[in-house]
Amino acid sequence: MPPARKPDPGRRSERSRQAVLAAARELVAEVGYTKVTIEAIAARAGVGKQTIYRWWPSKGAVVFDSFLALSQEADDDAMALPDTGDLEADLKTVMRATVAEFADPAFEAPIRALNTEIITDPGLAAQYREKLAAPVDAVKKERLRSAQRAGQLAADADLDLVLEVLYAPLYQRWLHRSGPLTPEYADALVEVTLRAFAP
Amino acid sequence: MPPARKPDPGRRSERSRQAVLAAARELVAEVGYTKVTIEAIAARAGVGKQTIYRWWPSKGAVVFDSFLALSQEADDDAMALPDTGDLEADLKTVMRATVAEFADPAFEAPIRALNTEIITDPGLAAQYREKLAAPVDAVKKERLRSAQRAGQLAADADLDLVLEVLYAPLYQRWLHRSGPLTPEYADALVEVTLRAFAP
Repeated sequence: MPPARKPDPGRRSERSRQAVLAAARELVAEVGYTKVTIEAIAARAGVGKQTIYRWWPSKGAVVFDSFLALSQEADDDAMALPDTGDLEADLKTVMRATVAEFADPAFEAPIRALNTEIITDPGLAAQYREKLAAPVDAVKKERLRSAQRAGQLAADADLDLVLEVLYAPLYQRWLHRSGPLTPEYADALVEVTLRAFAP
Repeated sequence: MPPARKPDPGRRSERSRQAVLAAARELVAEVGYTKVTIEAIAARAGVGKQTIYRWWPSKGAVVFDSFLALSQEADDDAMALPDTGDLEADLKTVMRATVAEFADPAFEAPIRALNTEIITDPGLAAQYREKLAAPVDAVKKERLRSAQRAGQLAADADLDLVLEVLYAPLYQRWLHRSGPLTPEYADALVEVTLRAFAP
């Protein structure tokens, strides 16, 4: 006799959770954060509204979690910082990949929506820093410390400032759509940053 | 006999226009852009809704014009770039003033609301670049060119990139509330930028 096919509530829950996150991400990219509703997320995910409210207190919380999942995927590939021993080459690899991602409409739309929220909501900004930005920055700083030991970066460089000088111009240019996002731009940012913090 | 007190429709119009702009700016700072309504702006300004719609097609347009007026006031004082002949001293003067303004809740609230709109709306972003950012940047680049002639900045420096490296880290730190906005930070940005673009 085959084993009874008992429903597995744990696995079904996780499937629903993933469906909700995917629906939230897709809808934000399609219609923008403001126009997304819990109802629409529920409908797209094929779950009831109550299911969403059981796990998340608000639309903002669902969308934030969906970004968190997205960002963890991104980290697994392009955002990781290689260490070939050549800081300039490694930074150019990463910055070219980052610039390409921000130039890609499918990738950038949800990140843009997240940024709108972060700017408006100090609580979400703090969550973003703690859960998303800080872990990513820690990995990057580890690579910069290795470059400091190798004498490729000033030993007393403020690593937070290094990351700001490297990334903030790209961030602003992308946010305001104020200039082209090209591999040449990625390279220029790396070269300028290394000159600013040369040993 | 004293002259008849004729109503002056032109002057009254201008007074109403200014009242609408001030009301829009105050309300955005108080409740945030999303919650501001044309009705509330009209009530605060003491004019009818129709008066607003006669001059502006949408809430976004009124709010944008109110920011434009604010920014022109700001330019008249702290944003203007002095030219004492010493680029580092002049940039520190300006960056300290800029950092202080962004650290001031009354000043920064409407600018934050404007940024939320700019990020979301490519049309508004283009207007912002053309009407607000470009004229201000032109003045700053004039000062940088004078420094290039004086041998205080690399003659081949890309001046758009210089301004991005100088301002974008401050912009990002303010937008994400990711670090303190202090005079020391202002000075550090100037020093880093001048090292990056040293002759």
